[in-house]
Amino acid sequence: MLLIKEDDGIIQYMRVLFLDEEEEKEWLLSLKEVEGIIGYTFNNKKWLREAFIHYTFYYPEEPRECNQRLEYIGDSVLNFVIDTELFTSYPDSPPGVLTRLKSANVDNEKLARVAAKCGLHRFLRHQLLGLDDWIQNFSNEILKYPVHSNGLIDTPKILANTMEAVIGAVFRDSTSVDTVWKVFKRLLEPIISPQTLQVHPTTELHEFCQKNRIIIRFVEGSNDEKNSTYHVLLGNNNEVIGTATGACKKEIVKNRAAKAALDHLKSTIS
Amino acid sequence: MLLIKEDDGIIQYMRVLFLDEEEEKEWLLSLKEVEGIIGYTFNNKKWLREAFIHYTFYYPEEPRECNQRLEYIGDSVLNFVIDTELFTSYPDSPPGVLTRLKSANVDNEKLARVAAKCGLHRFLRHQLLGLDDWIQNFSNEILKYPVHSNGLIDTPKILANTMEAVIGAVFRDSTSVDTVWKVFKRLLEPIISPQTLQVHPTTELHEFCQKNRIIIRFVEGSNDEKNSTYHVLLGNNNEVIGTATGACKKEIVKNRAAKAALDHLKSTIS
Repeated sequence: MLLIKEDDGIIQYMRVLFLDEEEEKEWLLSLKEVEGIIGYTFNNKKWLREAFIHYTFYYPEEPRECNQRLEYIGDSVLNFVIDTELFTSYPDSPPGVLTRLKSANVDNEKLARVAAKCGLHRFLRHQLLGLDDWIQNFSNEILKYPVHSNGLIDTPKILANTMEAVIGAVFRDSTSVDTVWKVFKRLLEPIISPQTLQVHPTTELHEFCQKNRIIIRFVEGSNDEKNSTYHVLLGNNNEVIGTATGACKKEIVKNRAAKAALDHLKSTIS
Repeated sequence: MLLIKEDDGIIQYMRVLFLDEEEEKEWLLSLKEVEGIIGYTFNNKKWLREAFIHYTFYYPEEPRECNQRLEYIGDSVLNFVIDTELFTSYPDSPPGVLTRLKSANVDNEKLARVAAKCGLHRFLRHQLLGLDDWIQNFSNEILKYPVHSNGLIDTPKILANTMEAVIGAVFRDSTSVDTVWKVFKRLLEPIISPQTLQVHPTTELHEFCQKNRIIIRFVEGSNDEKNSTYHVLLGNNNEVIGTATGACKKEIVKNRAAKAALDHLKSTIS
């Protein structure tokens, strides 16, 4: 009541603070849900809280706290537990195979898939426009590829980063590598194995063509500000056997064109 | 005695086998020295043994065993323990700083320095010609740079790999990250800190020139089969202010030319 007598500026200021506090309470309560999803109860909720603050949240102010350091240590511990798991599971695999397996099990798409399935983005505090749509689109896309798209999907990196931050938070809270593996092994299932490991379509196309003595080349189509285009041309006639256009990373568009060309060649040859 | 009655070929063959067995025994005995140097006694000597077999050892036969897998897991656990140490030691450092610190603490030169100081190469079974000379030269060179040369020394990668394999062996034998850190922290001292972290001369030169509004450019000199040459040219007159030639990686030669140019500019400006 007293506040009404103050000037407008101050009332406004207090309102914002009040709203923030309410929101903060609600948000902290909602984080309990995260503990249920990942199956781990934090001793110190500070780590859990920090994992869900994106550095854009305080924009335009300097971030007072954010999840970048947890993301850093989460990435590190994840790489290590996956390496250890692969090393013991495949005692005859040379380092080259282990490296490819590790990369597939910790790459952005793999982690973003887990984060999206767990719905972790619902708890993230950020100020990024259009993120929900992007994640919704990603969530729809992954249904087409049960294990991994191998470079065909436009992955929201922020999802992978949030996953790493949560892994980092569990590690900092538990200070135990074993706990990290126990908690996240389940969420990361199925772990990609030598049997389920696939190469990206661009690599597969090159290998396929070399084996079958087929000459192809990639040509970039006309790009506008948003979209890029790739064509795959066959032999001396430059027959177009694969094309893709998209408003995402060029590498993904190239992979999609390669996938189309591969499908075409396989159906023609067999 | 019986063997003398056999033909030359067989006697020779048996001698080789006999020598191998003797050598094997001596080698296994010598590995006890490694345990003393690193301050860790292996429960299962199999890991210690494997750490010191380079893949060239059985050449031209296929390697029956070698240290590449231990090198792989050693690299992984080392990265992780260093990350954890830096994360806790520098609670206010952002991920970018942690990344640079980690790289400096696990790079080839840093690990090769430790391996050379410990004399680990003396125990390595390999078939590489000229390795001893290279290592001797490296051991002399590091005396000029007490902590790190920052890209000025030609580092024998095999030394760094051996160090990683030994770290991997201790990890596999102890199955304990804490033990790995306890054993190798001492050997890795001094851990490079934000205070002792330096940038490579090429980067430092560019930063220095930007700050002082100086225009320079690198030019590759005439290279023969063994040596490469770099010059640093100043301003529009193309005055040569730094030159280096060497029979090692181009990056190192470029760093040496940059260092020469930096020394020249600093003495001229101050």
